[in-house]
Amino acid sequence: MSLPSEKIITLGHGGGGRLMHELIVDELLAASDVMTERDLEDAALIDNGRLAISTDGFTVQPIFFPGGDIGKLAACGTINDLAMRGARPRWLSVAMIIQEGFLLEDLRRIVRSIREACAADGAHVVTGDTKVVGRSAADGIFITTTGVGERFAEPAPGVTAARPGDRVLVSGTLGDHGVCILAAREELSLAQTVESDCASLLSLAEAVITAGAGGVRTLRDMTRGGMSAVVNEVALASEVSMEIEEDAVPVRPEVRGACELLGMSPLEIANEGKLLAIVAPEAAEDVLAAMRAHPLGRNAALVGEVGDGPAGRVAARTALGTLRLIDLPAGELLPRIC
Amino acid sequence: MSLPSEKIITLGHGGGGRLMHELIVDELLAASDVMTERDLEDAALIDNGRLAISTDGFTVQPIFFPGGDIGKLAACGTINDLAMRGARPRWLSVAMIIQEGFLLEDLRRIVRSIREACAADGAHVVTGDTKVVGRSAADGIFITTTGVGERFAEPAPGVTAARPGDRVLVSGTLGDHGVCILAAREELSLAQTVESDCASLLSLAEAVITAGAGGVRTLRDMTRGGMSAVVNEVALASEVSMEIEEDAVPVRPEVRGACELLGMSPLEIANEGKLLAIVAPEAAEDVLAAMRAHPLGRNAALVGEVGDGPAGRVAARTALGTLRLIDLPAGELLPRIC
Repeated sequence: MSLPSEKIITLGHGGGGRLMHELIVDELLAASDVMTERDLEDAALIDNGRLAISTDGFTVQPIFFPGGDIGKLAACGTINDLAMRGARPRWLSVAMIIQEGFLLEDLRRIVRSIREACAADGAHVVTGDTKVVGRSAADGIFITTTGVGERFAEPAPGVTAARPGDRVLVSGTLGDHGVCILAAREELSLAQTVESDCASLLSLAEAVITAGAGGVRTLRDMTRGGMSAVVNEVALASEVSMEIEEDAVPVRPEVRGACELLGMSPLEIANEGKLLAIVAPEAAEDVLAAMRAHPLGRNAALVGEVGDGPAGRVAARTALGTLRLIDLPAGELLPRIC
Repeated sequence: MSLPSEKIITLGHGGGGRLMHELIVDELLAASDVMTERDLEDAALIDNGRLAISTDGFTVQPIFFPGGDIGKLAACGTINDLAMRGARPRWLSVAMIIQEGFLLEDLRRIVRSIREACAADGAHVVTGDTKVVGRSAADGIFITTTGVGERFAEPAPGVTAARPGDRVLVSGTLGDHGVCILAAREELSLAQTVESDCASLLSLAEAVITAGAGGVRTLRDMTRGGMSAVVNEVALASEVSMEIEEDAVPVRPEVRGACELLGMSPLEIANEGKLLAIVAPEAAEDVLAAMRAHPLGRNAALVGEVGDGPAGRVAARTALGTLRLIDLPAGELLPRIC
């Protein structure tokens, strides 16, 4: 017996695209009496806005990959979500669900990665939990990290703050993490190895916010669903349109090649160390310079502009000068990418 | 090929007993540069002690059971861990890892349970995350809740605060949740249905702390590993001994019967709505009366006393007047009980 797809959870519900957006808006927001669709931020502000909190579950497969592992990913993912709201991570919790038979040595490596990532940003793991499930009940290890951070930016950058005329910047090449994971799974054979860009974006976010001098509207790390998901979410939440210069988006040649093989756009592929910034026009030049002066922002680029067209409409101008719509990716693009 | 058990994670590492204690102390504390073995509290104090934070992953199977479901369990579990440190839950995050094919209708029920449990205690779900994994990668749904609460008790009850002469109280019958789950799995056939005691202990903890008037040393909900795990953890962390009157421990007849079939002690079985309180001798009577006046504490009992014997030694005086040692349960007692 198979159930109609509107009654069950599909892999598409986890992909960072339209199905996930609908799942969250239609079903999960019901769990909260204080969140609305406009509050779908990377981190929520609490304690009268003094603190921010964010949570993420990590299921990446394989758990070790070029450029990182599930521990670094989990720590940096949570650090980044706080940094995107202008908060400095202070306290992290780590909850692990581990499959029976998992190697202790692998667990030690993961734990070291979490600790190193936290130490680099002055964050502390203050509490945790461990559950073990039978061999058939989980695959390897799942890690959920939750972070609480102290706000350093006033106002906090947010998904509803983009205004027509604002500039759209990205901090570097897109798609590295997603292509790295696919190659590590050998689902994609590549002549060259692409490393994951997995990294903490805290110091980059600090540099961007300082250089922006109050002109940074929105910061967002481009994880599941990639840049396409982020620009759509911002355009919807801010009720603006957006136009992206496709040729201005930095993409490594080997990532572009892999995307052609996959029939996907690099704009839809997950990153784990890249942010998108929407900044006031007068701040754009300083923010771009600050990004490029940072080790994680050397390939930063101005890629587009916010417009006053239909709310939520995002278009890319192609090399040929034509416009194509960039939609929220539909369903599951790459399962277990993070 | 099978690996020696000291190199891999076993179900025993998740059971709340000695193996789990060793895993946490030997391996996972390495992730934290601020936690030591003495900090193994239900919730950590942060922000100069003004706030408390706690995280827990829930993998219970079945997800719906008499008296609750995984959503209520996840919300109450986190609320309880905060309440045990004298903190009132304010903000919760909910991260779900869902198996492809999971029923949306079941997800809605779970989400409703989370919302109801939070609303009852004035807590708000402020952020969340959803990951979907393939059919073979997870079993049903795993939920990790993290809560941040505001301290209302000064000092915070803690695991290191028990002193010789203190009294040991439990808030009601032991073992209901664990036996309920086993019966629901049909691993145990029972004439009568035992309901899970899954409940928020916030108002009971408030009543206990108020009645104790500064004399409440330790509060602990008795989840995995049951009362046995809790008394051992407290005796170790406080460097005291403890003596329990076995006959004084309240246990439902049907739970006692089930435990006899299983060859287990009711003291080792998980509860999800029962707390153990260690209180100064002069506060014991008032705290016991306050527990019994509360709907969740009607069967509360004075069950033992803290001593100045060897640190960590916990003994039960049996009906025959003899003493038997209560050890930290060894390994996995009941997998996926919470």
